[in-house]
Amino acid sequence: MTTVSTVVDDYIAAWNERDEERRLELVQRAFATDGTYLDPARSGAGTEGIAAMIAEAQGHFPDHHIELVADPDAHHDRVRFTWQLFPEGAGPILTGYDYATVAEDGRLRDVTGFAEPVG
Amino acid sequence: MTTVSTVVDDYIAAWNERDEERRLELVQRAFATDGTYLDPARSGAGTEGIAAMIAEAQGHFPDHHIELVADPDAHHDRVRFTWQLFPEGAGPILTGYDYATVAEDGRLRDVTGFAEPVG
Repeated sequence: MTTVSTVVDDYIAAWNERDEERRLELVQRAFATDGTYLDPARSGAGTEGIAAMIAEAQGHFPDHHIELVADPDAHHDRVRFTWQLFPEGAGPILTGYDYATVAEDGRLRDVTGFAEPVG
Repeated sequence: MTTVSTVVDDYIAAWNERDEERRLELVQRAFATDGTYLDPARSGAGTEGIAAMIAEAQGHFPDHHIELVADPDAHHDRVRFTWQLFPEGAGPILTGYDYATVAEDGRLRDVTGFAEPVG
């Protein structure tokens, strides 16, 4: 059983990890085996599918990283958390609002991403 | 087929409607027949169950109402929207962050509510 805070930290780390093997490990720690992801621009299913989706997204945002804005807010099997996207050496350009359901073992089952430009 | 904006307006109106019959009508316009709702304090299933849940919540917040903070943000079958809770004649005391999945006919299928105090 993993805490929701650890799972969300692993999820954020997966989006930032450029090494393929370590990225997949982080996705496997963050997501249930049959986990899914959906945002306006992309979708992924299963840990390998989600890791490949993240790799492709990273290609569109080289030298960017994301950071959690605040501790996740969770109740029952639901969690929401807010993050921001930073280009290298600059302030945030995008705020993300993610919402997820959580599997019985504490990992994320279905993540929905929303985002809007900063400012 | 209803637009997500209309459905969310009906949802907000249902939370503010003190007349039992009109409240149920608004819930039926906002939610699929088998719709569900879950927040940290309460849950409801089916339109009649959700209407009864809202009536009970209103009992805890007499003379309060909620207002949408911005247009809903939607993609695929997902929507999020933010609202605030106002006591009569005063500024907002609570901000709510709701996430929902949308049924094929455009009505809300599963709403998850989160909230945090203002300020």
